[in-house]
Amino acid sequence: MYSAIPATDWHPKPAYSLQNPHGAFTANHIESGNYIYAFPDHTKMNDKKKAWSGRFTAGQDPAVERFNASIGFDRVLYKQDLALSRAHAAMLGRQKIIPKKDADKIVKGLGAIEKEMDAGKFVYDPADEDIHMAIERRLKQITGPDVGGKLHTARSRNDQVATSFRMWTRQRTDAIIRLIRRLQRALADRAGEHVETIAPAYTHLQQAQPVPLAHWFLAYYEMFSRDAERFVAARKRINVMPLGSAALAGTNFPIDRDFVARELGFDAVSENSMDAVSDRDFAAEFLFCVSMTATHLSRLSEELIIYSSAEFGVMDLPDDMCTGSSIMPQKKNPDVPELIRGKTGRLYGHLISMLTMLKGLPLAYNKDMQEDKEPVFDAAGQMEAMLEMAEMMIARLDVDKEKLAIRATGGFMTAVDVADRLVMAGAPFRDAHEVVGKLVRYCLERQIDFGQLKPQEAKKIHPLLEKAMGGAVSAMDSAIGKNVRGGAAPARIRARLKAIGKEMARWEK
Amino acid sequence: MYSAIPATDWHPKPAYSLQNPHGAFTANHIESGNYIYAFPDHTKMNDKKKAWSGRFTAGQDPAVERFNASIGFDRVLYKQDLALSRAHAAMLGRQKIIPKKDADKIVKGLGAIEKEMDAGKFVYDPADEDIHMAIERRLKQITGPDVGGKLHTARSRNDQVATSFRMWTRQRTDAIIRLIRRLQRALADRAGEHVETIAPAYTHLQQAQPVPLAHWFLAYYEMFSRDAERFVAARKRINVMPLGSAALAGTNFPIDRDFVARELGFDAVSENSMDAVSDRDFAAEFLFCVSMTATHLSRLSEELIIYSSAEFGVMDLPDDMCTGSSIMPQKKNPDVPELIRGKTGRLYGHLISMLTMLKGLPLAYNKDMQEDKEPVFDAAGQMEAMLEMAEMMIARLDVDKEKLAIRATGGFMTAVDVADRLVMAGAPFRDAHEVVGKLVRYCLERQIDFGQLKPQEAKKIHPLLEKAMGGAVSAMDSAIGKNVRGGAAPARIRARLKAIGKEMARWEK
Amino acid sequence: MYSAIPATDWHPKPAYSLQNPHGAFTANHIESGNYIYAFPDHTKMNDKKKAWSGRFTAGQDPAVERFNASIGFDRVLYKQDLALSRAHAAMLGRQKIIPKKDADKIVKGLGAIEKEMDAGKFVYDPADEDIHMAIERRLKQITGPDVGGKLHTARSRNDQVATSFRMWTRQRTDAIIRLIRRLQRALADRAGEHVETIAPAYTHLQQAQPVPLAHWFLAYYEMFSRDAERFVAARKRINVMPLGSAALAGTNFPIDRDFVARELGFDAVSENSMDAVSDRDFAAEFLFCVSMTATHLSRLSEELIIYSSAEFGVMDLPDDMCTGSSIMPQKKNPDVPELIRGKTGRLYGHLISMLTMLKGLPLAYNKDMQEDKEPVFDAAGQMEAMLEMAEMMIARLDVDKEKLAIRATGGFMTAVDVADRLVMAGAPFRDAHEVVGKLVRYCLERQIDFGQLKPQEAKKIHPLLEKAMGGAVSAMDSAIGKNVRGGAAPARIRARLKAIGKEMARWEK
Amino acid sequence: MYSAIPATDWHPKPAYSLQNPHGAFTANHIESGNYIYAFPDHTKMNDKKKAWSGRFTAGQDPAVERFNASIGFDRVLYKQDLALSRAHAAMLGRQKIIPKKDADKIVKGLGAIEKEMDAGKFVYDPADEDIHMAIERRLKQITGPDVGGKLHTARSRNDQVATSFRMWTRQRTDAIIRLIRRLQRALADRAGEHVETIAPAYTHLQQAQPVPLAHWFLAYYEMFSRDAERFVAARKRINVMPLGSAALAGTNFPIDRDFVARELGFDAVSENSMDAVSDRDFAAEFLFCVSMTATHLSRLSEELIIYSSAEFGVMDLPDDMCTGSSIMPQKKNPDVPELIRGKTGRLYGHLISMLTMLKGLPLAYNKDMQEDKEPVFDAAGQMEAMLEMAEMMIARLDVDKEKLAIRATGGFMTAVDVADRLVMAGAPFRDAHEVVGKLVRYCLERQIDFGQLKPQEAKKIHPLLEKAMGGAVSAMDSAIGKNVRGGAAPARIRARLKAIGKEMARWEK
Repeated sequence: MYSAIPATDWHPKPAYSLQNPHGAFTANHIESGNYIYAFPDHTKMNDKKKAWSGRFTAGQDPAVERFNASIGFDRVLYKQDLALSRAHAAMLGRQKIIPKKDADKIVKGLGAIEKEMDAGKFVYDPADEDIHMAIERRLKQITGPDVGGKLHTARSRNDQVATSFRMWTRQRTDAIIRLIRRLQRALADRAGEHVETIAPAYTHLQQAQPVPLAHWFLAYYEMFSRDAERFVAARKRINVMPLGSAALAGTNFPIDRDFVARELGFDAVSENSMDAVSDRDFAAEFLFCVSMTATHLSRLSEELIIYSSAEFGVMDLPDDMCTGSSIMPQKKNPDVPELIRGKTGRLYGHLISMLTMLKGLPLAYNKDMQEDKEPVFDAAGQMEAMLEMAEMMIARLDVDKEKLAIRATGGFMTAVDVADRLVMAGAPFRDAHEVVGKLVRYCLERQIDFGQLKPQEAKKIHPLLEKAMGGAVSAMDSAIGKNVRGGAAPARIRARLKAIGKEMARWEK
Repeated sequence: MYSAIPATDWHPKPAYSLQNPHGAFTANHIESGNYIYAFPDHTKMNDKKKAWSGRFTAGQDPAVERFNASIGFDRVLYKQDLALSRAHAAMLGRQKIIPKKDADKIVKGLGAIEKEMDAGKFVYDPADEDIHMAIERRLKQITGPDVGGKLHTARSRNDQVATSFRMWTRQRTDAIIRLIRRLQRALADRAGEHVETIAPAYTHLQQAQPVPLAHWFLAYYEMFSRDAERFVAARKRINVMPLGSAALAGTNFPIDRDFVARELGFDAVSENSMDAVSDRDFAAEFLFCVSMTATHLSRLSEELIIYSSAEFGVMDLPDDMCTGSSIMPQKKNPDVPELIRGKTGRLYGHLISMLTMLKGLPLAYNKDMQEDKEPVFDAAGQMEAMLEMAEMMIARLDVDKEKLAIRATGGFMTAVDVADRLVMAGAPFRDAHEVVGKLVRYCLERQIDFGQLKPQEAKKIHPLLEKAMGGAVSAMDSAIGKNVRGGAAPARIRARLKAIGKEMARWEK
Repeated sequence: MYSAIPATDWHPKPAYSLQNPHGAFTANHIESGNYIYAFPDHTKMNDKKKAWSGRFTAGQDPAVERFNASIGFDRVLYKQDLALSRAHAAMLGRQKIIPKKDADKIVKGLGAIEKEMDAGKFVYDPADEDIHMAIERRLKQITGPDVGGKLHTARSRNDQVATSFRMWTRQRTDAIIRLIRRLQRALADRAGEHVETIAPAYTHLQQAQPVPLAHWFLAYYEMFSRDAERFVAARKRINVMPLGSAALAGTNFPIDRDFVARELGFDAVSENSMDAVSDRDFAAEFLFCVSMTATHLSRLSEELIIYSSAEFGVMDLPDDMCTGSSIMPQKKNPDVPELIRGKTGRLYGHLISMLTMLKGLPLAYNKDMQEDKEPVFDAAGQMEAMLEMAEMMIARLDVDKEKLAIRATGGFMTAVDVADRLVMAGAPFRDAHEVVGKLVRYCLERQIDFGQLKPQEAKKIHPLLEKAMGGAVSAMDSAIGKNVRGGAAPARIRARLKAIGKEMARWEK
Repeated sequence: MYSAIPATDWHPKPAYSLQNPHGAFTANHIESGNYIYAFPDHTKMNDKKKAWSGRFTAGQDPAVERFNASIGFDRVLYKQDLALSRAHAAMLGRQKIIPKKDADKIVKGLGAIEKEMDAGKFVYDPADEDIHMAIERRLKQITGPDVGGKLHTARSRNDQVATSFRMWTRQRTDAIIRLIRRLQRALADRAGEHVETIAPAYTHLQQAQPVPLAHWFLAYYEMFSRDAERFVAARKRINVMPLGSAALAGTNFPIDRDFVARELGFDAVSENSMDAVSDRDFAAEFLFCVSMTATHLSRLSEELIIYSSAEFGVMDLPDDMCTGSSIMPQKKNPDVPELIRGKTGRLYGHLISMLTMLKGLPLAYNKDMQEDKEPVFDAAGQMEAMLEMAEMMIARLDVDKEKLAIRATGGFMTAVDVADRLVMAGAPFRDAHEVVGKLVRYCLERQIDFGQLKPQEAKKIHPLLEKAMGGAVSAMDSAIGKNVRGGAAPARIRARLKAIGKEMARWEK
């Protein structure tokens, strides 16, 4: 009936086939975009029996099996699944739910599997749908089915998957926090070097007021402080153990959830089994934290790109962080900040993907939730790479102090300071701004700067102006005047750096 | 040149014009979608002078002015701006930056403005671009320009707007937390009524295991607990005061930020002035918290919609929460949960809107950031309405216990329990599942349920089955068996309810 | 029970109440963010009867009614609803489904209502849930209930709402297309002025190659061409009439859908009634078209912002399109392009909102779909304002030709051209790039430009270089060399402008 | 300085390393989530020279190189890049830009590379950053550097990448269109089987009106028709050739773009070189088309999931498309529609990712744009799999006609029809609804259905009711009455199916 469209025609042939990603993995692969799925060999599949295949006489359609399989991406959870299973088996033994010696054999078998997997020698079977089944299948080979089969007592795939996934996310959250801390440290270091480097600060990308460059570095320090804080808060909600919730109702066996939680480093155990197997808040919150951090990285990147243009020309990334042209050796493309900026959209996409997937799902587990992992896996990897690159950029950024100083001096950026001094000198407040506006116009007409204005000229515009102008024209004086908590005064920046030093010492404990 | 397209033709006429939204507000309005903007009357605008109009000889183009104005939506910030200005003026007086008696006059004048605004009698001027300028203009009328003009000493629109916006967001965060608590209370109350109501729990929308209905209510209780927790954490980051950061560098005047922060109820003051005027993390985090909460509300709504279909028919919303048909009086449309579910997308949209707006923005303030308020304003209003409706739904939901009990009994949902009992009775683990599978098929073929199975039939399938079946066929027994922390056993649910009672008592302190 | 939290406490009081937005509209209003909803006065509501109130004895809960009402935003559809109803009534008369004289009375009554609404004198009733019911209620008052009540024969709210909404979206699509055309015309005009203005083109925000500025203007012309094309394609799918689909199955009356479609300017009638009342593809596609156009506007805006910074300083928006500072009169903030860029996120948000709302909805109508209108209403208004502003920016943009020419000349941007000429002059291809790289380094070391290089120096580096350098160092020569379709050569740009002139002439027909 | 955090500690070790994905590919790999990147071996990298490495003495930092590389995912473009290069080389020869015999050698060399790649025997080099450089490097090995080096004459990476990517997207667009057509055909086939199968149609998930099941199948047919139409329209904008735009300005060589376009099957060539290398509209539009199609698939999936619940029980997916439980053999989980529904969010995420990446990018190429490919690659693969699964579901879906008929009969779903008949029989319109409402209440009180009502009872409620009830109570009669274009009448459905038959015949031409 559909013969008009030959299957071989409409289905794009995979560009190539992967071989042996995991030791002796001999199955088929297809590549969907950059997602490389490893699929079972379906020619041999139909006579294999699935765990749930009871009444199903014909087995599952190979194309359906391919569509459903998650082994292509959930393999990264293998260490988490092994740790979880070891703790679970030990507990089953302690609680006498299974014989102690069986528990020991299981723990030992799992250790052997870890070695195989670490060494890339684990042999996947075409029928392995996901990493959890692959491990259990292999365990039964090692311990014999009677022993290995007992591992799944008092647990279900639903709580097992959720628990492994949380452990993985916790680990990557910790890695990300450490990378944010490194970036913050680099920012603080650079700030320390540039407390006396005066620079123009911008609003609307227009030169606005002079500040020490340290102030700019520390603005980003504060953003990443909040980001780290959010990850720390999210970690608390990630680090709750669902194991023991079984399929959705809990289990009939007298398990010891607290023991397992302690073994696996969880802060708490879940309080409702239906919620526990359905809850992916932690993944969405992780993706929000990632998105917010990426937003800050994108702002930093935008600034670095603009400041390293020929026209701005005040910052420069080292040659080995840029690409260039053999024929135009002076040209340096800031690929790294551009790519960081570009990846921000990708991370927003993962956040939307997760929220949309969860929207309107009835309790408890639904297969939709299999789509929870890839966004988190990718987001973690991207975030880590972005943070590493950002740290390297900050640490190795070259700053043109002279050009910054020149930029910070022109443009009447201290006009507000002159007005403030007029007020302090006793001028009526409402006049101050008007007088300074007149002063700037006077200078503009003569194409001179504040510094070139003679005291007697200033006096003519307003009697108090002579006094107010004294020193107020200097960019650094302007900064020094901002002697308020959070302000641009070098003294305040130094105080903040000292406090930051203490903060950083606490992280390392 | 463009005469081919007459302006009157291509610009869709507004459907109607609003009159007098704000007392004697006489300006023009246009309506863009449901957003109703109040714009100044531009026929009189050109000869008005703007604060920043110094060098600009011609004034601003009326269409540009319309495009830039935010008065149409930032009017909701008036109470926050007035409180902020009162605290700021008091501080200026205390610090002797302005004379004490001027500070007093300003505080009094602001009080008068609040009364006008509360009463809807405040008269807006066409030249008012935003609520902050409207208030300052009126203040100068009341106190005279010499006094009123001093209010803006040592602050800037940048820190003023950010501070008002944070105060507003803090207030709505508190309102939302209270509404979540009310919803949680309703869920706990209903759970309390239904500890003994047995119901089928679902995975894949397929009947899976029997649980007390209380367990289902409490699953949502836990979700909203996390949501409230997230709002509480976000509030900490919302409640940091930018005021004192001025345009971006801080101020030359010896202000007392801590005094103002205390007056306005802030937990902390910002540590970097450039960051403080550029940071909208708090708004994005608020929108994420809103989105996550909406996700949970959408799941709850989906379940209520499905359960109140004729086919499921186990839950029923009261008539006065539904719409019906005069001609089909038996038909009840669950509009409320549907609308809650539908609004979830709107809230995700606001989150994406905020993140995208911030992406790649250089420091410090950029006009893009004017787009920060509408998503938050709308999200807060929608969230509050959704939570109110959800509480009402839960509180007034009608449950058909009999139908639930029937549903919970059929479908061999206790098969796992039979297998577990077989194991406990000494059957080899690997046999248990196989035996029960055989048992179910036996029943399916005879179209009988576990309850209709005779002991001797059970015995024939497996000797231990007779014992294992005793009582295991009951749905409530199945639930009772899940006697593990977080499990579906009524005893565990009662324990959890007790703990929840203590939690709730703490909220009200 | 909930007395611990007094209702007056947790519910934020509206900042003010709107009065009389619509003539004698006396109902309550609340403002949620900038969304101003007009709600019925619920004190009088309970004794009112709803159309569907048959079995519902108590009426609808006032808070529920408020939550469900759409009159606050769907009022903008009044002209569409009136046109639709007139055509429907006329058809009912022609088909003898209702008496001809009743049809005439209805048409006349609807005309009277339009006058009332146009004049802002229409009096809304608290019980009006949406614009469609408001109009029908008023019609019955004018014609008497026996006649007016016949209007709803052979139609349902489901097909009526979908049809009005499509008519509104069609109208705004046309308005947007016209505005895009105006913007394209402005771009073409400016391109026409700058065929000879040489400017640096950028990649990675690094100066890359010299091109006539016209080429840059026309790059945006092409983008907006595609945008207009997409709107034209979307219009085809918008302009399909659902009316006649009734609730979901069609109607029992012998209606003439083609007549009504012709009267209302529809291109086609829908082919499946269930699909017709559920389909909001057209709204999502409209929002995608809007988002894509906004993306292009955001790119243009970013460039204008960067180019009008002091550091780039090659473009300048007129004073009356910027804001400035009384005290720093030289400072000009490019608010307009910043706001355009910022609004882009808002539009992406609307797109996500619509898609998410539709995701997973069963057929046919669900109340979730009431959330379809606000994103479209707002997006249309924002898009129109953004396009108007963009046209004004382009038309009035000031360009610094001299500075552009200087920028286009430096930076060895013609190095590739020198290499190409070497090849054309007979140099082995693989040597050409190497030679020119050496040449550039030679100049860099001496801090000279190509133009300052003496022929004998060039010759020393490579014999063919003297010839290749002749003229190749000029930025304009470089552009002239790109004499390929779509290339930067002025001759090619002029040819393209000629073709564009013809395109534009076609739009106006 | 950072020694407190050992690098080995914070960087999560990859779970395993891939071997040999591409023949003798010996480089390192890391896996970030499911994204498997193949990275060069950086230990050997530093002494390698990059094409652009002229002035860069130290080479690129290995971590930077890893971050920048795209070879991990752009390898899928190899066939497109080879075809493009063959056509380009042939053109260079024809135009005498390079010697004819060199062009021939290049074409031959590219053919050899294709064979290597097809066979998985291509040996990647650690220094290959992307597929384009890999192919060029290998070509130089085969033809010698003098000949192979000429291939890049008159083109740039910017136009080359954009062209390959468009060719790939075009191919997948065609594949997707064919898969949509197959799905439509399956829907039409099933509709053809069920013109006489009466079923309840829903609004608000409440039974609303009886329609033939064919009408439901065809509602989806119409949705996918629009989806296919959108892809066809998008293809037009995809299929425009950027090649010849070079870096951004065009080229100095006398190329023949039309020849190359014809060779590669492009419909048109781009009209502006700056736009051509910056334009990714086609990718965003492709992702929107994918998202819209997924939305429809998610609605279909939701319905299948609900209808195959035990409570609805009217549809059933074949066993080999579901998963089950060995212990609960009666339970069938509809994994396939759930996964389709879940993947919808992923596709929305890709759309947002692309739009956000493009937002605010200055012209022309920026490295951000390297993020354009992965979302499209993944979206295409997911979409194809989803469509295949949907077709299979529709084709093999089991329908319970009896249960549907029973459902369609109850619930007074024909009440509207009775009212319409009353009107047609001469009852005053305003009475008709009231009378039928009374009738339904009468039946509800007696717990009878329309069919059980005796004529004399009907008569008592209203004299015309006896006549109106005759036959109107039948669900199929109700459908038959909807005899209007697009309506549910079987006659209309048959007419539509006939027209669809003709449509389908046209696709296959």
